[in-house]
Amino acid sequence: MSVIRQDPTTKEWVILASERAKRPDQFAQTHTWSNLPAYEAGCPFCPGNESFTPPELLRIPGHQTASWRVRVVPNKFAALSGTGPVTRREAGPIFREMEGIGSHEVIIESPRHNQRLAQMADEDVEQILLACRARYRTWEQHPYIKSIIIFKNHGPHAGTSLEHPHMQLVATPVAPLLIRRKYEVAISHYDDTGRCLYRDVVEAERAAGVRMIAETHRFIVFVPFAARLPFETWIVPQRQEPSFGQVQDKDLKELASVLRRTLAALDVVLHSPDFNYVIHSAPTADANQDYFLWHIQILPRITTIAGFELGSGIFINTALPEDSAIMLRASWQSC
Amino acid sequence: MSVIRQDPTTKEWVILASERAKRPDQFAQTHTWSNLPAYEAGCPFCPGNESFTPPELLRIPGHQTASWRVRVVPNKFAALSGTGPVTRREAGPIFREMEGIGSHEVIIESPRHNQRLAQMADEDVEQILLACRARYRTWEQHPYIKSIIIFKNHGPHAGTSLEHPHMQLVATPVAPLLIRRKYEVAISHYDDTGRCLYRDVVEAERAAGVRMIAETHRFIVFVPFAARLPFETWIVPQRQEPSFGQVQDKDLKELASVLRRTLAALDVVLHSPDFNYVIHSAPTADANQDYFLWHIQILPRITTIAGFELGSGIFINTALPEDSAIMLRASWQSC
Repeated sequence: MSVIRQDPTTKEWVILASERAKRPDQFAQTHTWSNLPAYEAGCPFCPGNESFTPPELLRIPGHQTASWRVRVVPNKFAALSGTGPVTRREAGPIFREMEGIGSHEVIIESPRHNQRLAQMADEDVEQILLACRARYRTWEQHPYIKSIIIFKNHGPHAGTSLEHPHMQLVATPVAPLLIRRKYEVAISHYDDTGRCLYRDVVEAERAAGVRMIAETHRFIVFVPFAARLPFETWIVPQRQEPSFGQVQDKDLKELASVLRRTLAALDVVLHSPDFNYVIHSAPTADANQDYFLWHIQILPRITTIAGFELGSGIFINTALPEDSAIMLRASWQSC
Repeated sequence: MSVIRQDPTTKEWVILASERAKRPDQFAQTHTWSNLPAYEAGCPFCPGNESFTPPELLRIPGHQTASWRVRVVPNKFAALSGTGPVTRREAGPIFREMEGIGSHEVIIESPRHNQRLAQMADEDVEQILLACRARYRTWEQHPYIKSIIIFKNHGPHAGTSLEHPHMQLVATPVAPLLIRRKYEVAISHYDDTGRCLYRDVVEAERAAGVRMIAETHRFIVFVPFAARLPFETWIVPQRQEPSFGQVQDKDLKELASVLRRTLAALDVVLHSPDFNYVIHSAPTADANQDYFLWHIQILPRITTIAGFELGSGIFINTALPEDSAIMLRASWQSC
């Protein structure tokens, strides 16, 4: 019989369907993007093609022959753009809409077309994260921006078709319901206990032990109790910071190594899967409250989100989190 | 500039990214399952292989040489199964779980391996819907079942690998948050206005006209104002019925034709896309309240759900609902 577990951060239930359980090699997929060239003449993110992108928002200069290490540019096909007051319009008796104000940016991680973050030097990953934090800090100043989501789509199963390694930032003029939900659950927990929910989750995962992947001075890495997708992995800071804009330099340096090793471990166990990751932060207006903790949620895309998930919001996960953690833990040590 | 629209049934915002807009032929995908055989010796759902499935829950007898038209069987790899009281267990200081009680069933739509619902006779579609309603009615009797979701995954991009045409039913011992959310929004609207939200949505869509696909005596078909995915389409009954278990025979007969024509129109416009559809109903305990209206949500899977959607819950839709409706409306008339 399967087990239904509640995600303590959203209160949503997740079905762990052990009777549909697969062996890890049944999850493994061949990496879609093997044997890519280091340079691709037509790629808008490759060096020499800087004029293909909209004007730069940030550049981290290169060393030796490279003119840059990281570039941040507006997404050429931005989902949101422009600044100004955000006004809801009535579009009929029951419909509401507003202009798509906000920002949609691309963080180009490396001049090298085939550079995977999991295989970079830690110092290079650190530069990418510094760029992300700088852009986060720029947008959290704006009063009409309610939420900033930084994420990565790696591979076609994760929703990207551009091979050149990049992350994205979207600054929205509305607080997404999912983020508001997470925040409300965290506030309710704080009201009940006087403690940060995510701190309690970390303590509970550490005490249980069976889903832990790694713990460093500044971060804890684990497969969550109610993982929605097979091999879902969280990276949570030890320090009490509600928003990614607050991460300190030393923590960012260690995060670079922790993120790289975690992605490398997933590459080993799942044969370089397509994946998404998302940096969750508190809504910008609540960045100084102790209820929330920013965290990175890594979602391997080795299964397909189907009608039941889209229709109910309940995920069916065919991999037991404890089994996934055993494999990732073993692999992490050697990455 | 893009537009952000609010889904009146969930209050979630959807970004309509007109600057990323594609032409319809750029959305079109070649059908994954073309040229399938009418019979496949190894298929567990093909005639003669009835012993490959768990014992039948329902059979609609065949006519002429066929021994059946529709079969309902338990899913061999059920996500939920078994009956009994549902008890939450504390699994550590912050974690909650329960046994995976409930049901997970497969509705085999036809003895023919390559039969698409969009190409069936209306009388055959009607038999499938009768089987779905019968199973819905069976489960809504059980006090520990909180929600019944009927859905279809068509094609690998929609999460299925089994070619033989089938739908699924999942009866859950918890009310999914998404369904509870929809219900709460509907109750709030009822409190404010004294009217059913879905009835008001239908009225508003009819008044706007620009997203309408078709209207029959008993159903209305439209692309919703804040469609989450390109060419998302809803079928809503004219009669005030909160749950699918309440549909009357005459309505089911007409629904068969409306559903078939809508799927056929999507096939024409999008070149036989992979898709999901979901029959939404009120939570079983609220089947006699007037706040809700069951409805079918059809979700073509021609784009990939990416990190932003998974991390925020906000969807970026690259097709303007009004544009999608023009094409589907034209196609519906000839289907």
